[in-house]
Amino acid sequence: MTIFSKIINGEIPCHKVYEDTHVLAFLDVGPLSSGHTLVIPKEAKAHLHELSDEGAAALGRVLPRICRAVMKATGATSYNVLQNNGSDAHQVVMHVHFHIIPKIEGEGLGIIWKAGKLDSERGASLAERVRAALG
Amino acid sequence: MTIFSKIINGEIPCHKVYEDTHVLAFLDVGPLSSGHTLVIPKEAKAHLHELSDEGAAALGRVLPRICRAVMKATGATSYNVLQNNGSDAHQVVMHVHFHIIPKIEGEGLGIIWKAGKLDSERGASLAERVRAALG
Repeated sequence: MTIFSKIINGEIPCHKVYEDTHVLAFLDVGPLSSGHTLVIPKEAKAHLHELSDEGAAALGRVLPRICRAVMKATGATSYNVLQNNGSDAHQVVMHVHFHIIPKIEGEGLGIIWKAGKLDSERGASLAERVRAALG
Repeated sequence: MTIFSKIINGEIPCHKVYEDTHVLAFLDVGPLSSGHTLVIPKEAKAHLHELSDEGAAALGRVLPRICRAVMKATGATSYNVLQNNGSDAHQVVMHVHFHIIPKIEGEGLGIIWKAGKLDSERGASLAERVRAALG
C-alpha cells in the first residue's frame, strides 16, 4: 500500500482540493511552485497504462476543472501537467498521479527538450506497430 | 487555425496511431525518444482548462490504452505524460496535446525538479481557495 492509498483512506491527512467517487486531488507537500496539485485515481494502480477505462475517463473529465480552479486561486496563467511512470521517469510514489504545476515567475517544472527528427519511413512503420498494438 | 486542426481535417498528413469521435493520436515529428506520441482532442482549445468535460473525459479514457500500445510497440517500460499550457510553460502549438514520451536508454523527457516544502498553514489556506474556486 502506498502513501496515496493511506491518504485516500484518510489514514494520512492532506490539503484536499477535490474529491468524487473516482478521483482525489490535494496539494503536493513538496511543491515546485505555489498551487502544485496532485490529481489521483482512487483505483490503486502504479502506472497510467494499468488504469481502467472508467477510472481514466473520470480523472480526465475533472482535470480541466481542477486546472481552472488552481489557476484562479494562484493567479497563474501558465502551467504544466505531468504524469510520470517508472522510477527512471521520475516516478516516486507508485500510485498514478497527475501533477498540475503552475508556472510562476520562474518557479515550476524545469524541462529539458532534446528533440530529434522523425524519419518518414521509420515513422510509418512505428505508427503501424502502435496501431497493431492497439488492436 | 493551428497545424493540429489541419492534421485533424486531413489537410496535413500525420503518422496516425489512433482516432475516435473525440480524439486523435499520432507520432510527434520532433520526438524526444522513439515512440513519442501526441494525443489531442478534436475540440480546438488552446489550454487544458478550456476543454469541455466530455472532450476531456474521452481523452482521459483512451490515454492508458494508447500508453499501453506505445510501450508494447517500442519495448519501453518507463514513460512521461506531459501536457503544457502557455508559451512560458513550453507550449508551442496552441491546441491541447498530451505528449506520451517513452524513456529509453537516457532518451526522453529531461526533468528539473526543484521542490520546496509546503507550510501547513499556507497549505490549508491555499487548498481552501482552490476548493472555493471549484465551487
